[in-house]
Order: sequence, then C-alpha cells, then structure tokens
Amino acid sequence: MTMSESPVESKARAVREASGVLYDSSTAAKNRLLRAIMSRLRSRTPAVLAANRDDVEHARRGGLSSVLLDRLKLDEEGIRRILRGVRDVIALPDPVGRILETVRRPNGLKIEKMSVPLGAVGIIYEARPNVTIDAPVLCLKSGNAVLLRGGSEALNTNRVLAGTIRAALEDVGLPPGSVGFIDSTDRESVAEMLRQREFLDVIIPRGSSQLIGWVRENSAVPVIAHGEGNCHVYVDSSANLRRAEEIVYNAKVQRPSVCNAAEKLLVHEKIAKKFLPLVAAKLRSAGVELRCDPRALAFVPGGTPAAESDWRREYLDLIIAIKIVRDLRDAIDHINRYGSHHSDAIVTGSRANGERFLRSVDSAAVYVNASTRFTDGFEFGLGAEIGISTQKLHARGPMGLAELTTSKFIVHGTGQIRH
Amino acid sequence: MTMSESPVESKARAVREASGVLYDSSTAAKNRLLRAIMSRLRSRTPAVLAANRDDVEHARRGGLSSVLLDRLKLDEEGIRRILRGVRDVIALPDPVGRILETVRRPNGLKIEKMSVPLGAVGIIYEARPNVTIDAPVLCLKSGNAVLLRGGSEALNTNRVLAGTIRAALEDVGLPPGSVGFIDSTDRESVAEMLRQREFLDVIIPRGSSQLIGWVRENSAVPVIAHGEGNCHVYVDSSANLRRAEEIVYNAKVQRPSVCNAAEKLLVHEKIAKKFLPLVAAKLRSAGVELRCDPRALAFVPGGTPAAESDWRREYLDLIIAIKIVRDLRDAIDHINRYGSHHSDAIVTGSRANGERFLRSVDSAAVYVNASTRFTDGFEFGLGAEIGISTQKLHARGPMGLAELTTSKFIVHGTGQIRH
Repeated sequence: MTMSESPVESKARAVREASGVLYDSSTAAKNRLLRAIMSRLRSRTPAVLAANRDDVEHARRGGLSSVLLDRLKLDEEGIRRILRGVRDVIALPDPVGRILETVRRPNGLKIEKMSVPLGAVGIIYEARPNVTIDAPVLCLKSGNAVLLRGGSEALNTNRVLAGTIRAALEDVGLPPGSVGFIDSTDRESVAEMLRQREFLDVIIPRGSSQLIGWVRENSAVPVIAHGEGNCHVYVDSSANLRRAEEIVYNAKVQRPSVCNAAEKLLVHEKIAKKFLPLVAAKLRSAGVELRCDPRALAFVPGGTPAAESDWRREYLDLIIAIKIVRDLRDAIDHINRYGSHHSDAIVTGSRANGERFLRSVDSAAVYVNASTRFTDGFEFGLGAEIGISTQKLHARGPMGLAELTTSKFIVHGTGQIRH
Repeated sequence: MTMSESPVESKARAVREASGVLYDSSTAAKNRLLRAIMSRLRSRTPAVLAANRDDVEHARRGGLSSVLLDRLKLDEEGIRRILRGVRDVIALPDPVGRILETVRRPNGLKIEKMSVPLGAVGIIYEARPNVTIDAPVLCLKSGNAVLLRGGSEALNTNRVLAGTIRAALEDVGLPPGSVGFIDSTDRESVAEMLRQREFLDVIIPRGSSQLIGWVRENSAVPVIAHGEGNCHVYVDSSANLRRAEEIVYNAKVQRPSVCNAAEKLLVHEKIAKKFLPLVAAKLRSAGVELRCDPRALAFVPGGTPAAESDWRREYLDLIIAIKIVRDLRDAIDHINRYGSHHSDAIVTGSRANGERFLRSVDSAAVYVNASTRFTDGFEFGLGAEIGISTQKLHARGPMGLAELTTSKFIVHGTGQIRH
C-alpha cells in the first residue's frame, strides 16, 4: 500500500495479487480451504448470531421494512443452510482446467481451449449476510480472488463472517487478500470499487434494481448483472387447458416477488372465451389483480383495463396483465418487443408451435409446457448459483461455477514458425 | 424514425428491427444472401475501384502516411481476396442453433443450452475498406444485424461497398436495415453510436489503439476489444538452442508491426552466456534493436540498456527487450506482471516445464515450442476472424463466428410446476 492509496484501492490490489496464487491452485487445495471455512464458521456460529442480533435490533429501531429485516436475519438454521451450501460446492467438479475444444492443425500444432479463472471478482450486495460466505465460496472454488462490499444493515454480521474466511485462509496458508472485505458502508466506497479497473476483472452486483442500475451506469470495471424479469406465459390454441391453468397459476402465484415469476398472460384468441374465465377465477382466488387489454376484459370478471405501460412492467407482486393475441407469431412478437428477455413460456399441444416458440423468442430461458419459475441455478442442475444474467455477453441465464471462468488457448508445438 | 431522432439513432433502430428477422433466418437464407453479396460485388467492381482511386488520391494529397495509404488501397486482387473470404464463410457451418449442453432433470425437464445470434452488432473501423464487406459477412452468417461506421479516408469506397450489400439484401428480400452504414465521418457520429445501448448489443472497434481506447472509455454499449500485445518468448535452460533461435527470430522479425509479434525475450540464466550472443547476432542481422537488462547486456554485443518502462511496452517495430531470469517461476512472474496477457511462448526441452508454463501464464494464448505469431483466427482453424479479444469476458483470443453468438436455455417440459 502506497501512502496515497485508499483502503479500497489497497484491498483491490491485495485481491489482484492473491488471484495469482489462486489461479493455479489445485482442486485439493481449494477444497481444503472450503472445509476450513466450514470449520471456522461452525466454531464461530455464536459470534455470528450475536452480531446478527445487533444488526437486526439496530435495523428494527431504524425502521427497516419487515421484508428487509427478514433478509437480514440469520439464525441457526440459516447457518446450517450456508454450511450445506459450502459442502455442495466442495462436491462439485472443479470448473478450472477443463479442455473445452481441441484442434489439430496441418502444421502439427495442437490447439486447445482451456477454462481458467476470471481472476479478481468484485461482489456488491445488500441486506443478505449469507452472501458474505456463499459468494466467496463459489469464487474460490473457481480459482478467483474476491472483493466484497456488503450493505450497511448487515455490517456487524458481515464483519464476523469475513473474519471466519480470513481465519480459514490463514489455516491453509493462502494469502489473506484472497477474500477482501470493505469495512465501510458509505456510497463512496462502492464508487471507488467501480473504478478499480486495474485490479478487478468483473463486478457482480446483487440486490435491488436501483443498486444494479447504479453499478451498471457507473462502473469502469466490466459488470455482469441481472436486469428485470418481465416474464410471459403464452397459452396456445392447442393447449391442454387444465395444464395451462396450473402453469399460469404456478408461474404467477408460487413466489410473486422473484424475477422468474410471470407478469403477463397471453392467450390465443380461439380459446380465450373458454380459458380466461377459468384461469381468472383461479388467480383471483389467490388475490391476484387482473389487468386486461380491451378484448380480454370481456372474458375476465373483476378485471381492470391495462395501461400501455403495463406491458413493460415487472410487478414483483400479485398482479398479472392479460392480453389476447391473434396467433403464435403475434405472441412471439409481443414477447420480443415488450419483454425483458428473461424467462418466457408457451403452453401448447403442438410440437411445431413449441419448437417455433423456443427458436424465435429471444430470452435467457424459453420453456415449452413448464413454469417460468424454474430459471434458477439449482433447478437447472448447476449445483450452485452466483446470480442470473440477463446480459448477452459472457453469461446468459443462471450462472454457476463455469460462468466464473474464462478461457485461454494452450498450444503445443514442436518448433513451428509462421511463414 | 421520429422527428427528434438523429440519423445514427434511426439507423441503429432499423438495425435492431432487422435483427429480429435475421435471428431465426435459416442457414440456406443466410448463405443465399452471402452469394448475392458476391454477385453484386462482382458486377460493381469497376465502381468500387473508381471510388477507391478517388479516396486514395484525396488521401495522398492530404498527406496520409504510406502505411495508411497501403491499407486504404483496394485493387482487383483485393476484391478477389474479399470474394474468396465470402466464399469461405459460406462454406463454414452455421454457428447458430448448436446445442452446447443438455441436462435432464429428475423432474423430467430437458434443459438445453443453444447458441443464438447476439442481435445487433456495431463495428467501428478505420482505413481498411475491406472491413465493409468482411465484417457484415461474418455478422450475417451468425444471424446478426450490423451497423458500420468506417473511417473518413475510405468514405467513397465504403459507400459503394455498403451499396452492394444493400442491393444484395433487396435481391433476397431481407430488410435493408440489416446492414446499416453511417454515411458521416465526424467524431460525433461515433460518439452517438456509442450511446445506442437500446439498439446495439455490442460494439467491436477495429483500428489503432487510440481508437479502441477511446471507444472503450466512452461506450454505453458493451465493447469487445483488442488491447495491446506485449508478447514474450521465454527460453528455458533445457531448450534446443537452434529451435529457440528460430522461434525468437520468427516471433520478432516475420511481421513486427502486428499484435502477436514478440516484444520481449526472457532467457534462463544457465544458458544466457551461450544463447544470447547467437540470437543477438541473428536479430541484429535483421536490424533489430536490442534493449537489455544489466545482466543480459554483458552477453549482447551492440545491446543498449533497457529502461524499466521497456518491460511494459508494445513496440510494433524492430525492437526487442532482453532479460535474464533465474528460473521458470521468475519468467512466469515477469510475464504475468509486465505482459499484456496476449500471446506468450516457452521454448523448452522439459515437458513438465512446458505444462507448468501453459497452466500458470494467464494470457489469451500460451505456447510451448512455437512462435507467438500463430495467434490468429485462420491459423487457429476458426475459418474466419472478426478480431482478437484480449478481454476476459465473453471471448478471449481470436474471435470467429462462434464468438458472434450468445446462448439461451431452451426447456422442454410436460406440465412441470415448481413446488
């Protein structure tokens, strides 16, 4: 650390330096570290819970909403869940060193593409303190060093959790800079992190869309981020209507506050008269507000007119907007135009229509005859999830360990020169 | 186009709209378009050559350097080279619609990761007019629409070339907006292109490092770019010295002005006394300036002392800096610290040392016993090259058609809902 360097910059520099050690650490060494984290976390559980009680009490007095208090709270079951997560990651295959492609050239060169760590990853997050363990565990397993900046509400909890990781790094003889923790909660510390282009390879923001938007706009470091989820279910004319009803209900109601919940229902005009009253009754029974285009309104008792702005909105609430479409093409066009390219589903009895929907809807995840709620690293079998990307570059959809790697070409020669 | 929209914005909007049509175009339709481009280019060759003569004459009067004049000039052989390039791309497999991964989940969901077009690609380039055909051809084959903004020197040539593509699009009934051409050469038109985040998915700048740096700093659209190439050859103690001499000579001298030419020579201390005089004599015979660290200077007649700044510099010229290192670890550390993570090679007789170098050097391409000059889409067998990325996200190293795609998850269900 030079005299003029800020604490954030010196931590970013330490993370960069540690990344060189993690870059070619063996799978055994990385798993040893993760086991040491489990062990340290177990023995420090009382200290973590005590710090969390302080945070929760302080936040409650400060008037934090019950939703955010719920995210902030960490109890014994929460610690057990974190420990199970670490154990699961230990069991996952090492994403580094995989040969992704092999080419032999006429001149005898053997060219392989191999997965390697990204290097130094920045994570900016809000209330949930479990991220302080979950995110570094994924980064470390994939050979990356990581710089953490959590939310102010969870500062005491995060500080103790970061301490357990630091102790585990010492236990196994890895550089303490491998997991940096920014022990400051002012906005300026985030802004400074976003300027560490020299030391950080990527920043992954996790939290509210306000936070993510702000990071995206202001970061000099490349960002992998999660945008909104304005997800659709389209019910085709050939759909099994009972199945359609179940899928729509599940996609909307099972957990309305998450990004892969459905916000829009599109219905083929041929079945609207029959299907809409059924599905509307079922949704209404769960307290869902139904906002309808003029044609749908006729078939939805208790519906209200939708505004043009509804078609682009992510409600994250018990609200759904309903529209009658002329045909499959009309549905696809609507989704590509108004959607957020997150998760969209068709319910259909036609194989051809299903395939056309899968091919033409340009979203991170497209479904035939299943709920949009499955867009998730665990449900997709990745074994872990660092987030969901709605970007097109580098990673799209649920991100697991592989998405925390990049690649390099390794070339074996026998003296080849270029002519 | 609304009244308040600028020409750049309305072209970007048209590109975005056309991208929806290209997104699910068949391989046959895309190849038909590429054949139409060949046909139109053949019949308009005289007009292209005439426009190019105007550009060259104008640039000559304006005092453009001979290097840039050479890049600007397009003759009949140049047109034939472009046509051969289009034919090669027609023969390449369609990069869209490939199933990259398949998972079956216990609940019966079949989840596949499929390659799909990026969408709308912006290309910003300088003097070389062949890019006006080469880049769209790669983008179109991979299902992308493209917005072009070329350099002012080549404006007349580019205008005619863009016209041939527009005619070909009409021939096959695809939207004329599929390839937009910004017919303006002021800096503001580039700046405006960089703001089209709503309409463009990625921008690929091609040209000088000044241009690329400026685009990187100022773009609201994600950028895939090519940084500097400060490439190393490390000669290990066990190297075959004749082979080492050939590789070093080739990497430095064969084409010193390109990014994959070697700029640094690292030599193991055990063989420095024997190897350095040999290689120095050979390099000097080609007019290479030799800048040496204090220890190397003793073995390099005619060498001059290197400054600390030399270790980070990309010369793109007949200059090489030479350093003696203690061992393999010292060489790896030097390369990871001072290099640009582009292309680096080891010459060694030890298999273990070769593998350790490949694993631990964090560059886009790492070589054992071959010249760094092979880092190139054609040499790597990609069949085409849109550029070389020195970034870590999305694409790293030579970029072919596959790097102009992203992916989506397609999920086949039979009514699955989430519990």
